[in-house]
Amino acid sequence: MGPESHVLAPELQVSHWLNCPQPLSLAELRGKVVVIEAFQMLCPGCVSHGLPQAQRVAESFSSNDVVVLGLHTVFEHHAVQGTREALAAFLHEYRIGFPVGIDEPSANDRLPKTMAAYELQGTPSVILVDRAGRLRSRTFGRPADLALGAEIMSLVVETGAGAFEQPAAGDEIAETGACNADGCPL
Amino acid sequence: MGPESHVLAPELQVSHWLNCPQPLSLAELRGKVVVIEAFQMLCPGCVSHGLPQAQRVAESFSSNDVVVLGLHTVFEHHAVQGTREALAAFLHEYRIGFPVGIDEPSANDRLPKTMAAYELQGTPSVILVDRAGRLRSRTFGRPADLALGAEIMSLVVETGAGAFEQPAAGDEIAETGACNADGCPL
Amino acid sequence: MGPESHVLAPELQVSHWLNCPQPLSLAELRGKVVVIEAFQMLCPGCVSHGLPQAQRVAESFSSNDVVVLGLHTVFEHHAVQGTREALAAFLHEYRIGFPVGIDEPSANDRLPKTMAAYELQGTPSVILVDRAGRLRSRTFGRPADLALGAEIMSLVVETGAGAFEQPAAGDEIAETGACNADGCPL
Amino acid sequence: MGPESHVLAPELQVSHWLNCPQPLSLAELRGKVVVIEAFQMLCPGCVSHGLPQAQRVAESFSSNDVVVLGLHTVFEHHAVQGTREALAAFLHEYRIGFPVGIDEPSANDRLPKTMAAYELQGTPSVILVDRAGRLRSRTFGRPADLALGAEIMSLVVETGAGAFEQPAAGDEIAETGACNADGCPL
Repeated sequence: MGPESHVLAPELQVSHWLNCPQPLSLAELRGKVVVIEAFQMLCPGCVSHGLPQAQRVAESFSSNDVVVLGLHTVFEHHAVQGTREALAAFLHEYRIGFPVGIDEPSANDRLPKTMAAYELQGTPSVILVDRAGRLRSRTFGRPADLALGAEIMSLVVETGAGAFEQPAAGDEIAETGACNADGCPL
Repeated sequence: MGPESHVLAPELQVSHWLNCPQPLSLAELRGKVVVIEAFQMLCPGCVSHGLPQAQRVAESFSSNDVVVLGLHTVFEHHAVQGTREALAAFLHEYRIGFPVGIDEPSANDRLPKTMAAYELQGTPSVILVDRAGRLRSRTFGRPADLALGAEIMSLVVETGAGAFEQPAAGDEIAETGACNADGCPL
Repeated sequence: MGPESHVLAPELQVSHWLNCPQPLSLAELRGKVVVIEAFQMLCPGCVSHGLPQAQRVAESFSSNDVVVLGLHTVFEHHAVQGTREALAAFLHEYRIGFPVGIDEPSANDRLPKTMAAYELQGTPSVILVDRAGRLRSRTFGRPADLALGAEIMSLVVETGAGAFEQPAAGDEIAETGACNADGCPL
Repeated sequence: MGPESHVLAPELQVSHWLNCPQPLSLAELRGKVVVIEAFQMLCPGCVSHGLPQAQRVAESFSSNDVVVLGLHTVFEHHAVQGTREALAAFLHEYRIGFPVGIDEPSANDRLPKTMAAYELQGTPSVILVDRAGRLRSRTFGRPADLALGAEIMSLVVETGAGAFEQPAAGDEIAETGACNADGCPL
C-alpha cells in the first residue's frame, strides 16, 4: 500500500492560542513536519516527561523542517485547569515557548474536540504529521528520545510520499481513568 | 547560648486543610519534629524537587517522631492556583498524601500570612520545627537529601533543649521575582 | 539491652592504602564516626551509586565528626581489578579523594579478609562504626540518602553509648553470584 | 558537492574481538549503517553515558539496518585497562552484549591505530559509517539521544548516496589530557 493511503491529519480545533500572535492551522503548516504534544497542565507525566521532550525536539530540529505545537487537551479537572489564565501561568512558570492551543471543549462530551478526532488514548501523547499533512503516528506515554528523534527524522527526509505505517499502539496502560507514572489515560 | 534562645515557631494560619479531617496546629503537634514543605502548585522546583523530597521524608521517618505537612503559600498567580479545588486536583494527580494547609491570604499583601510570619524567601522552602515547637531552620531551594536527613535526625534524637543555631541562609537566588530551576523566590 | 552490647568493629586488614600517606586503623579513628564504603572497581552499582554517595557523605559532614573510607573488597575478577595500579587509575579517573584501602586477600578463600570479618553480603556495602569503635550497621545495596544521612547523624550526636541495634539486613538480592542493578552479591 | 565526496571510513584495526565469534570488518558490514562507540573501560563518561547510549541504539534500531560495535581505544592507563581479560570482565559486569574490538596498539605512539586513523578527540566518541562504508560523522562527548537518533535514521533511509556533511566538531573540551564529566579528551 502506498503512502497515498495515509489519511490527512484532522484539522486542529482550538479555542485559543498562547505563545502565538494568531491562530495556527495544519493547513498552513503544510510543507513542514508537525510535532504535536498533547498534554494537561496537571498531568505529572506531561510535566516531567512529555513537555521537556517536546522542548528538546524544538531545540534539536530546524524550524525550517519541524514545527512543535502544544495542545492542551483537558479531559479531567476542567474547572481548575481549563482556563486560559491557568494555562498561561503554567506556560510562563515552565518556560514553554512554543505555540500552545487550547483544545476546544465539546458540548456533550468530556473529551475536547481535537483529542476526540485523533482518538488519543490520554496524555501525554505525541502526534506526528508529515510534510503532506498526513497523520503518521500517535504515541501515548513516554517514547524514548532515540526512537522519537529517529521517527521525526524519517519524516523530515521524505521528499515525496512516505511509506504507510500503522499509528503506534502506544504503551500499555496499567490503570484506566487515573494518572500514573506514564501519564493520564482516558 | 542555650536552646532556650530559639524562638517558638509561629503558629500556622491556614484557611483550609486538605488530606486531613480536621484543622492541625503546631501546638497540638508538640512532642514531634514537624517538617513543613512550603510550595506552590505551579512552581516547577516544588513539583520536581520539594514535594518528592517531602514524600521521601514522610516515608523515611516514623510518624511517631516526624510529621510532614505541606503549606500552599501562594504568592503569585493567585487567581489560578489559589483555589481549594485547584489544589485538591493537584494533590490527587501528584499522589500527595500528607496533610496540606492553604496558607491564609492576607488582605493587603501578596504574601500569605504564614509565609510572611516565617519570612520565607520563596518556594520551595523546608521549615523544621523541633519537638518543643521551636523554629530550627528554614531552607529555600533544594537541600540535599543527605543533609536534610541528617538535620531532621538531629532534632529527632534531641531529648532536652537543642543547641542554638542560626536559621539556614538558603541557597543563593540567581533571579528575583521569577521561578528558576531552584524554585520561586519572592 | 544497652549500648555496651555492641561488638567492636573488626580492625581493617589492608594490604595497601591509596590517597593516604600512611596506614589507617579504626583504633586511631576512635572518637569519630567512620563510614566505610566497600566496593569493587568493576561493580556497576558501586560506580553509579555507592561511591558517589560516599563522596556526598564526605562533603556533607564535618571531617571533625565523620571520616569516610573506601575499602576495595575484591571477590571476583581478581586478576584484573586486584592490582594497586588498576585501583589507582580508577580512583584518579573517578576523582575519588578519600583514603581507600585494598582489603587484604586471603590465602585459601576468594573473600578478602576484612570483607569476611564483617560478613558483608556483597558490594557496594556501607559500614557504620560509631565514635566508640563499635560496629553499628552494615547495609548492602543502595540505601537512600535521606536514611543514610539520618543514620550517620544519629551516631554523630551520640555522646555516650548508643542504643543497641541489629545490623541492617540490607536489600533483598534477586540474583546470587552476579552483579545486578543493586550491586554485586556474593 | 555530492555524496561521492565522502571518504571511505578507515578499516578497523583490531587486535582481538570480544562478544563475537570471528573478526569483523567494515568491508563485510557494507550495506548497513555502522555505529561505533569508542570507549575506555576506566573513562567515567563512557561508563555513565556513551556505553548506555550505544546499548539503547542497539535496542532501538533493527539489526537489519544498524550494527552497533564497541571499540576499546586505550590511550591512557595501558597497563591496567589494556588487557583482554580486564575488558572481558568489564563487559561481563556491565552487561554489554554487542561486539567489541580492542583497538590495536601502535608501536611508537600512545594512540591505538584505529583511533589515530579516525583522528578522534578522545573517549567517548560515536562514529557513524553509512551503508556505502563512508565516514559520515565523529562526535566526541555526549550527543543527545534525540540528535543521535535523528542522525542515524537519516543514514538508515538513504538509498543512494547521501549529501555531504562535515564531520561533527564535537563538544568543546574544558580540560585537555584528563577525563572530565564529558569524557576523556586526548
